[in-house]
Amino acid sequence: MLNGQTVADFMKEEMTAKVAVLKEKGITPCLATILVGDDPSSETYVRMKGNACARIGVHSIKVVLPAETTTEQLIQEITKLNEDVSVHGILLQHPVPHHIDERAAFDAISIEKDVDGVTTLGFALNAFGVAAFPSCTPQAIIRILDFYNVPIEGKHAVVIGRSPILGKPVSAMLLNRNATVTTCHSKTVNLEEIVKSGDIVIAAVGKPNFVKGSWIKPGAVVIDAGYNKGNIGDVDYSSCLTPSSAITPVPGGVGPVTIATLIEHTIKSASMQSEKTS
Amino acid sequence: MLNGQTVADFMKEEMTAKVAVLKEKGITPCLATILVGDDPSSETYVRMKGNACARIGVHSIKVVLPAETTTEQLIQEITKLNEDVSVHGILLQHPVPHHIDERAAFDAISIEKDVDGVTTLGFALNAFGVAAFPSCTPQAIIRILDFYNVPIEGKHAVVIGRSPILGKPVSAMLLNRNATVTTCHSKTVNLEEIVKSGDIVIAAVGKPNFVKGSWIKPGAVVIDAGYNKGNIGDVDYSSCLTPSSAITPVPGGVGPVTIATLIEHTIKSASMQSEKTS
Repeated sequence: MLNGQTVADFMKEEMTAKVAVLKEKGITPCLATILVGDDPSSETYVRMKGNACARIGVHSIKVVLPAETTTEQLIQEITKLNEDVSVHGILLQHPVPHHIDERAAFDAISIEKDVDGVTTLGFALNAFGVAAFPSCTPQAIIRILDFYNVPIEGKHAVVIGRSPILGKPVSAMLLNRNATVTTCHSKTVNLEEIVKSGDIVIAAVGKPNFVKGSWIKPGAVVIDAGYNKGNIGDVDYSSCLTPSSAITPVPGGVGPVTIATLIEHTIKSASMQSEKTS
Repeated sequence: MLNGQTVADFMKEEMTAKVAVLKEKGITPCLATILVGDDPSSETYVRMKGNACARIGVHSIKVVLPAETTTEQLIQEITKLNEDVSVHGILLQHPVPHHIDERAAFDAISIEKDVDGVTTLGFALNAFGVAAFPSCTPQAIIRILDFYNVPIEGKHAVVIGRSPILGKPVSAMLLNRNATVTTCHSKTVNLEEIVKSGDIVIAAVGKPNFVKGSWIKPGAVVIDAGYNKGNIGDVDYSSCLTPSSAITPVPGGVGPVTIATLIEHTIKSASMQSEKTS
């Protein structure tokens, strides 16, 4: 089993040391989270991220906006945070209410503070291998593969899902690590057959228990980046456990590493800012 | 055979009509080309693009810079063209001499004038399906497939190559058109086997006659976007002709459509600018 908590704990040690160094210079890394509306899952995620910051000594501030906030109002709040020098990272909790132009809101985040890796420009910099802050969940997936020494180069990676913050960036990152990458989605014909050709399978589709054990090539590595209410993964864990050589569980897989990555980026942003001003 | 010249001729008629409308409003679309150094192939390409503009009534200006131009000097020239309201599109002929930071130069082109679709931001907008001007060669490939009614949705497209201006954007565009997309490259293991699973094969690798007929699934559509000196394609045309159901030749395939696309984007840029100022 690829234990995400183990990876996150390892990252925590590194991060705690870095935060101590920054604090000696009088800098406390600070993450601003923005929550629009009162979706209970989103509230939980934002609270978890705040708690994780606290455990590492990173400051977090929480901006809570009513469900009826307009795109313009949301962008105004983001602009304030962009201009606030005490804020090093901005996270806009996804999804926002339907009437908001989410893409416009994401792109209002300044690239220096886009620690969640959600901006359009950040995506391209990431695809070209030069981003400061890759999208967090894709970066967490790569982190887990690296931590457990799973070879990526020359392997056939099959990504199920093509969202701008998960399927597309993880495909780009695996490609930059020299995997041969196939990106699948709802219109894919023969999905089962294609998944079966994968040495590494990334499930990022948002359908509970969607990927079955019979789809997995013996010895393949299976990463479950599912994002479903009730904390159920995209991968039918029990049936996939036998054919796979390694697999991430839900919970305790990609999730904790994603949160750790977000904080790592916030700390990095604070370091970069301190270098610029020193 | 998928005849690129036929597609380009069709586009030419459309474009000529659009230019006439713009000229009635007192606007002549203008493409600025920049050539750094004296590579004979690049000179030929730039000349071909200028001639194609002339045939459609689009004005073109040619900026020729010595091989020893620095990145800073090149960016200064680009900035001047960005600010020149009579210029609607800017093309920096690729490749530039090695000492120049090509990515920085591309990204100096303002997004409104990036008719060749080479900027980092343009790539991401394209990947997210909202770019004004997708990268020209990828766009030409899609144009040819559409012109000849080749279905894309649900098909398995295999792209060989991952350059920022060809392999990566064409993969993104085929994905946005609901193909299942596999991106291959120099580190791909079992390339032949993967190509053989493709319903649509895009060769964008830059190796003369690289793709062999024995790699092609019977009935597959083969697009040769090769970019080799001496005008030799990536596809071994004679051996691929039999198994494929349709194939683009070199010359007379993707090339003329790419040039037509560049001019189409320049005309579109001029239209967009005239709407903004009117």
